[in-house]
Amino acid sequence: MAELIDELRWKKFPVLNDGFVCLVDVMGDDGSVVQAARVSYGAGTRQVSDDRTLIRYLMRHRHSTPFEMAEIKFLVRVPMDCWRQWIRHRTANVNEYSTRYSVAIEAMQATEPTEWRTQAESNRQGSGSPLPEDVGRQLSEDEVAFQRAARDLYEHRLSVGVAREQARKDLPLCTYTEAYWKIDLHNLLHFLALRMDSHAQAEIRDYATTIGEQIVRPLFPLVWEAFCDYRAEGMTLTRLDIGVIQRLQQRILQLPAGAKPGDDDFLAVQDEAWRPLTRSRERDECRQKLQRLGILPL
Amino acid sequence: MAELIDELRWKKFPVLNDGFVCLVDVMGDDGSVVQAARVSYGAGTRQVSDDRTLIRYLMRHRHSTPFEMAEIKFLVRVPMDCWRQWIRHRTANVNEYSTRYSVAIEAMQATEPTEWRTQAESNRQGSGSPLPEDVGRQLSEDEVAFQRAARDLYEHRLSVGVAREQARKDLPLCTYTEAYWKIDLHNLLHFLALRMDSHAQAEIRDYATTIGEQIVRPLFPLVWEAFCDYRAEGMTLTRLDIGVIQRLQQRILQLPAGAKPGDDDFLAVQDEAWRPLTRSRERDECRQKLQRLGILPL
Amino acid sequence: MAELIDELRWKKFPVLNDGFVCLVDVMGDDGSVVQAARVSYGAGTRQVSDDRTLIRYLMRHRHSTPFEMAEIKFLVRVPMDCWRQWIRHRTANVNEYSTRYSVAIEAMQATEPTEWRTQAESNRQGSGSPLPEDVGRQLSEDEVAFQRAARDLYEHRLSVGVAREQARKDLPLCTYTEAYWKIDLHNLLHFLALRMDSHAQAEIRDYATTIGEQIVRPLFPLVWEAFCDYRAEGMTLTRLDIGVIQRLQQRILQLPAGAKPGDDDFLAVQDEAWRPLTRSRERDECRQKLQRLGILPL
Amino acid sequence: MAELIDELRWKKFPVLNDGFVCLVDVMGDDGSVVQAARVSYGAGTRQVSDDRTLIRYLMRHRHSTPFEMAEIKFLVRVPMDCWRQWIRHRTANVNEYSTRYSVAIEAMQATEPTEWRTQAESNRQGSGSPLPEDVGRQLSEDEVAFQRAARDLYEHRLSVGVAREQARKDLPLCTYTEAYWKIDLHNLLHFLALRMDSHAQAEIRDYATTIGEQIVRPLFPLVWEAFCDYRAEGMTLTRLDIGVIQRLQQRILQLPAGAKPGDDDFLAVQDEAWRPLTRSRERDECRQKLQRLGILPL
Repeated sequence: MAELIDELRWKKFPVLNDGFVCLVDVMGDDGSVVQAARVSYGAGTRQVSDDRTLIRYLMRHRHSTPFEMAEIKFLVRVPMDCWRQWIRHRTANVNEYSTRYSVAIEAMQATEPTEWRTQAESNRQGSGSPLPEDVGRQLSEDEVAFQRAARDLYEHRLSVGVAREQARKDLPLCTYTEAYWKIDLHNLLHFLALRMDSHAQAEIRDYATTIGEQIVRPLFPLVWEAFCDYRAEGMTLTRLDIGVIQRLQQRILQLPAGAKPGDDDFLAVQDEAWRPLTRSRERDECRQKLQRLGILPL
Repeated sequence: MAELIDELRWKKFPVLNDGFVCLVDVMGDDGSVVQAARVSYGAGTRQVSDDRTLIRYLMRHRHSTPFEMAEIKFLVRVPMDCWRQWIRHRTANVNEYSTRYSVAIEAMQATEPTEWRTQAESNRQGSGSPLPEDVGRQLSEDEVAFQRAARDLYEHRLSVGVAREQARKDLPLCTYTEAYWKIDLHNLLHFLALRMDSHAQAEIRDYATTIGEQIVRPLFPLVWEAFCDYRAEGMTLTRLDIGVIQRLQQRILQLPAGAKPGDDDFLAVQDEAWRPLTRSRERDECRQKLQRLGILPL
Repeated sequence: MAELIDELRWKKFPVLNDGFVCLVDVMGDDGSVVQAARVSYGAGTRQVSDDRTLIRYLMRHRHSTPFEMAEIKFLVRVPMDCWRQWIRHRTANVNEYSTRYSVAIEAMQATEPTEWRTQAESNRQGSGSPLPEDVGRQLSEDEVAFQRAARDLYEHRLSVGVAREQARKDLPLCTYTEAYWKIDLHNLLHFLALRMDSHAQAEIRDYATTIGEQIVRPLFPLVWEAFCDYRAEGMTLTRLDIGVIQRLQQRILQLPAGAKPGDDDFLAVQDEAWRPLTRSRERDECRQKLQRLGILPL
Repeated sequence: MAELIDELRWKKFPVLNDGFVCLVDVMGDDGSVVQAARVSYGAGTRQVSDDRTLIRYLMRHRHSTPFEMAEIKFLVRVPMDCWRQWIRHRTANVNEYSTRYSVAIEAMQATEPTEWRTQAESNRQGSGSPLPEDVGRQLSEDEVAFQRAARDLYEHRLSVGVAREQARKDLPLCTYTEAYWKIDLHNLLHFLALRMDSHAQAEIRDYATTIGEQIVRPLFPLVWEAFCDYRAEGMTLTRLDIGVIQRLQQRILQLPAGAKPGDDDFLAVQDEAWRPLTRSRERDECRQKLQRLGILPL
């Protein structure tokens, strides 16, 4: 374990065009979660379950406090735009590079011609498919020119004596910042669950995925496995979904061997509250869950 | 709304033999959640969804910050034993009755002869069925005598001049305390989800249920409905559960009309990790979920 | 009180060129602090001290929990640059305008020709005197042009179909955002103590001062008075400062009537750790405190 | 450093008759505070100040975030009465021994005949001088008998089958519990500042002092020195205190050499708000500060 930590520490995993995450320090491992749980659950647990079983039990039943007993510290380099989302997680300790004390980092997030994304249609907050490359090429050229102008303006202000804290006011959101970021394992997993999710913005998803797969997975292999099995790749059913499945299952049992239920079966047993609606996002979500479960055909 | 609040405020809902919860103050209602969400999601949401739909969307997708925009303050009277569990929820503001400043409240939680519970067999932390009433009668008599002796000891210490902060050291955990407890709606719902759960101890479950049904439900009817539908009465499926359902569903589709799957079908499609185990709590939990969903017969 | 709240609610107090703060809701008043304190300190306090005396006692002795029993919610409009500092206070609830869901607010913080500030010399993080107005005029003109170019770039991206979450990446930090911000009174006072301080950046100091003087002062007059007397206008002496005062006071008592101590007296009794240093920031701070106390002449 | 940690880890420092604290793990040292501060304050600070000077600057100016970058984990054994105060500090991570899962620890806090304390007269919440030993002897005898009866009652309940979660309800508050307790250095120092204070109850003061002097001091020598100099042994002056000192100092400068100011001088320059009051706690506190500073004779 000590070797693994030494190998990981200060190793910069690159993200975006000029960002990175790296491990600075870690307190604890899988065994720390077990150690803490056993003070709660008493000596009796020692005989009946091994570490893996205990960790999985804790994760499955959302017993979160033992996971708070491990702590991880990172150094990250992130565009401020992305950092604005990151910092909304309030349970971490943070020391950020100060552009009051120091000249702003001379690096901005650049977008390659192929990386420009369209507005998602179904999802008001997300991105869709890439824009055509020729459009992207022009956008990237304009971006380079604009970012250079922004930096020139900033440096000009400094050169005529404007205070750093004021000169920075027109820096683009894509300017990189750096920060030490320290958080306990439970809250880190919560951050990862939200930010590795497909609804998260691509940029922060890249950071979260790198942290999760490159750093958390090797440091906490049993915890990571349980996290994937029970949170990242799990599914939540609502009271309404449960009712739909119960009723649909009764119909399915009446089908002859080899016959499959169809969308009319689904609509026949839908929740009564959805029936009068021509569009219902909740009904759509339920249908997608049943398809993923293999209860409805895709 | 103002009338409802005036009606609820300071109304003591009794819990246990001498405890209570009452509403002291509230900031916000269902509309406050909507108001806060709309600053995030912008004017566009105004046209396309009404308040109920928006609240349900937020709850279903665990967008928790709008629920933090309502705040509730209670006065509660609770045995210290129960308060020890309560106070573990760290996101609340608390002012508790001080037995350093004042003489301890002269009330202890009494247990009726019919209320004594056996140790649960399947669950190391819970209770099972009631004890026989004759055993209970003796236990209750002993309890009365012991609690009287404890109070006498405490008062004797005070009478010979022992400092209050020291005299209290042998008070039984069942001694009542009182506290103002203030919390935002999101964290209150998290508290209720954990403490109204069947695994919570009966005493704190009584408090949580009273708070939820007598106070939160009328003050936040749309939020409460969504909470029940999506959290309290929902279900979580793990990656392994999903695999079992997918495989079992394929078998079910091959059954002749009217035939039902049995436990052998379940065992045939169980997760490979469970197969070698004679006892597996995770397999048992999966089976119970499938029974609740109507996929396996009870 | 209800009238005062109605008068304040939604009243936009302007800050900077296009920002504001306004009260959305409040739970509690001076009396709520007293109410909560009395549950802790027991009935005995009721007779011996009135509300003002009790509030002042609590503030003076940093008994912070009763101040957590009041809660305030604001709507604020702030440049993102300033919001980056604001959001570092982790104990608040926040819902911010989303530029993933909606087009960014079309307003940026403009700087008047007379408002440009030089870098402070003594203080690496602060501002000094204003820049000459002719320099400022040019800076302001450049700023207007740059901000227009930035907005044009943003709107062009949207017009060719770039996703909002990506198009925003080069918006200047001075772009306004809006947020609901809800916080308890104790943590609000902590925010105000730090952000109304002369070391805070001018922009956030304007916001903090407006919140403090226009909203908190009328809503919580007794708390505000105690806050000013004990925190905002108080002073902290270190162990070393105390030693200096003790030794200096002995010298002063030996001076003939009307004679004043000088800097040589101060240096004679300085802390031994400072004596070998030609420059000592801690010694300078001590001298300034003694001057403010009237122990040393200015 | 690694040797020091190995030496401290799991070493049980005894507190009270059967309690202890021990270090389980630590992340960081004095250098971690410096490392984090330098990301904020930039490379420029590296040349101009050594680690000690920087740490002292940060502590003196309450720049708290770099101190959050170190983390310490303890295992503690504490009477529940004392734990009730401890757990009020909400910024820590906690896993406590569960008396739902396991039989309660068979140990209670015993009070020696010489350890019984009288109620403080001036301070409603504190203790005064010890009680006479003959009174104490009787109190201790009664305590032993009561604690034995309490344990017997508990074990009798278990023997007839009462659930552990219910059987424990009449355990005395002095029953020991154990917990892992993990906290960052900033919040630990805040805990220590409050709980090592002379107004804290003797029992928790013993724990805090042991943690501070036996564990924090060796692990973080520079931070500890700064903490003592600036917080534990510092003093806060209010706006009113400052006014009194300013006016008193003017009178003192008019005194002939060798003459000392008296209480009439103090009363002559007291704050106008205190003048009409026959008793004023705030005036008393001011007088005590001036005596400690050597401005007024003791």
